[in-house]
Amino acid sequence: MRTIDWAGGAVEIIDQTALPEELRVLRLSTVEEMVEAIRRLAVRGAPALGVAGALGVALAARQHSGDPDRRAAAVETVRTARPTAVNLARGADRAAGRLPDGPEAVLAEALRLRDEEIESSAAQARLGADLVVSLCGGRPVRVLTHCNTGALAAVTGGTALSVVAELHRRGALDEVIASETRPLLQGARLTAWELDGLGIPFRVAVDGAGAFLMSRGEVDVVLVGADRICANGDVVNKVGTLAHALGARHAGIPFLVVAPETTLDPTTPNGGAVEIEDRGDDEVLTFRGSRTAPPGSRAVNPAFDVTAAELVTAIVTDRRVITGAPVTGQGAGIAARG
Amino acid sequence: MRTIDWAGGAVEIIDQTALPEELRVLRLSTVEEMVEAIRRLAVRGAPALGVAGALGVALAARQHSGDPDRRAAAVETVRTARPTAVNLARGADRAAGRLPDGPEAVLAEALRLRDEEIESSAAQARLGADLVVSLCGGRPVRVLTHCNTGALAAVTGGTALSVVAELHRRGALDEVIASETRPLLQGARLTAWELDGLGIPFRVAVDGAGAFLMSRGEVDVVLVGADRICANGDVVNKVGTLAHALGARHAGIPFLVVAPETTLDPTTPNGGAVEIEDRGDDEVLTFRGSRTAPPGSRAVNPAFDVTAAELVTAIVTDRRVITGAPVTGQGAGIAARG
Repeated sequence: MRTIDWAGGAVEIIDQTALPEELRVLRLSTVEEMVEAIRRLAVRGAPALGVAGALGVALAARQHSGDPDRRAAAVETVRTARPTAVNLARGADRAAGRLPDGPEAVLAEALRLRDEEIESSAAQARLGADLVVSLCGGRPVRVLTHCNTGALAAVTGGTALSVVAELHRRGALDEVIASETRPLLQGARLTAWELDGLGIPFRVAVDGAGAFLMSRGEVDVVLVGADRICANGDVVNKVGTLAHALGARHAGIPFLVVAPETTLDPTTPNGGAVEIEDRGDDEVLTFRGSRTAPPGSRAVNPAFDVTAAELVTAIVTDRRVITGAPVTGQGAGIAARG
Repeated sequence: MRTIDWAGGAVEIIDQTALPEELRVLRLSTVEEMVEAIRRLAVRGAPALGVAGALGVALAARQHSGDPDRRAAAVETVRTARPTAVNLARGADRAAGRLPDGPEAVLAEALRLRDEEIESSAAQARLGADLVVSLCGGRPVRVLTHCNTGALAAVTGGTALSVVAELHRRGALDEVIASETRPLLQGARLTAWELDGLGIPFRVAVDGAGAFLMSRGEVDVVLVGADRICANGDVVNKVGTLAHALGARHAGIPFLVVAPETTLDPTTPNGGAVEIEDRGDDEVLTFRGSRTAPPGSRAVNPAFDVTAAELVTAIVTDRRVITGAPVTGQGAGIAARG
């Protein structure tokens, strides 16, 4: 099934906050429901957020077809529901470009983006698996991954985890170490759930163990996704990514970022220019509803971090493998069309 | 109050698994109770484990005074209750050296170790605070720390956290970031509880945020403890330490290790020679009874990691500041007696 889709006049999503205990499908019929689902991370992951942005605008177009001002305000709440992921605003903007042509045209544009994300994921899987095999000499590899970058982060397939699945299909995968990804445990909850479903051998590790497992020789390659890739090649991704990148550099293993071209943001010069969402105290100070720290404690909770371009071995998109930042311009990178 | 002490013919400890919800004191009257408390981490932290090892042998001496074979077996279960921390075996061995002199002599030796740990902690606090002030130019510093290295890890005071408390007393501390320290959350549960009690401003962060907060300029110095320091200067400490050390190197800030001389282990050449305890799946895959990953998931759970000597700016003991490994031999390091 698809993580996000359009069915019978509404958006349907898998509620990712209910996994792994329950596979719950939500129907979102209004912009307000969509924005709330985005904010509470019921839908998440850069490609899925792009489609959510476009379908959110499709909902706005139907809901406020007679009131351009309210429609414009609704579109803005969709595109700014989370500040860091570039795909959300980009998906919303693309669908909004068809607003003059009416709600059906907006919806058609959103569904084209959905279909493109499905194709994009398959292309990333092929290019990424080719690269891993070439870098790691063809032996079955042990992959460390962070957060969730699978089908649940996209429509189907995913980004970094689609590469893992493709390696598994080719018989080129030994094992995955899924970094649990505090505070919201997308690795332990979502990636483990997807790997289990795919029949891929995996072990869960706490985030702090990643660098050590690499240094001990238990990981051949790190594969992560991205929420935004800046013009200079800096990668904005789930908090904890930078520590894994430093671990990979220390251990001398490749650190690969897998993301669609739509995650490249040439208008953002570098990671220092990106607003990093702080999601507040509660996510850190509680663990699945149970408090972790004494009452009155405060937290600092950046949802993302910035990995400097120099730490990234290569960026794999749906169209090319980019090595040696910057990532924009035709002269940059190795064009390896899939 | 003291984390571990002798009172009325038994060992009394603060049960660290019950914090921060409850300050529960356990009375341990037998070797078996002591070993069980050590294994389930009711008592933990290198200096506290040293005293626990010595007092455990004192219990064995009283319990099996008429049976040398059973006494020897009991001593061995104490000294091997956890494999990685050098202080446990060393404390047990020191007390066991007095076994020929009878149970009271063993107890007296254990209580001398307790008193020495209290003095040692105060000396580490002074030397460490002097070093931080000299490295950071005297402005109030923002410290990141990992796991718990306070009074709860010792008898009173602690190691790295005793330096934090001393900086606070001197007016030289701005804020502490307490890394939560999955899987057992000693940072969120224990360090936050101690800092709150000391009136020290702090925020809790997930472990994966440490390197990023450093790279964003929010940390001036990293202060951690150690479970074992090898002859070449490699530091064995709570898992997650290596990632923070890499983050400090990347951000260009000092990474300081604070530990008593008793944590130095000249018989272990380097970190590769240390048995790293794997504490099994449950700590990673559950939290207080709530599962984090789907049923059937496996985990990898190294309790400690190894930070290469080259990543350590300095080691502060109760007798000296050591820079430029190796840590043994009089020619090595800067002798800065407190």
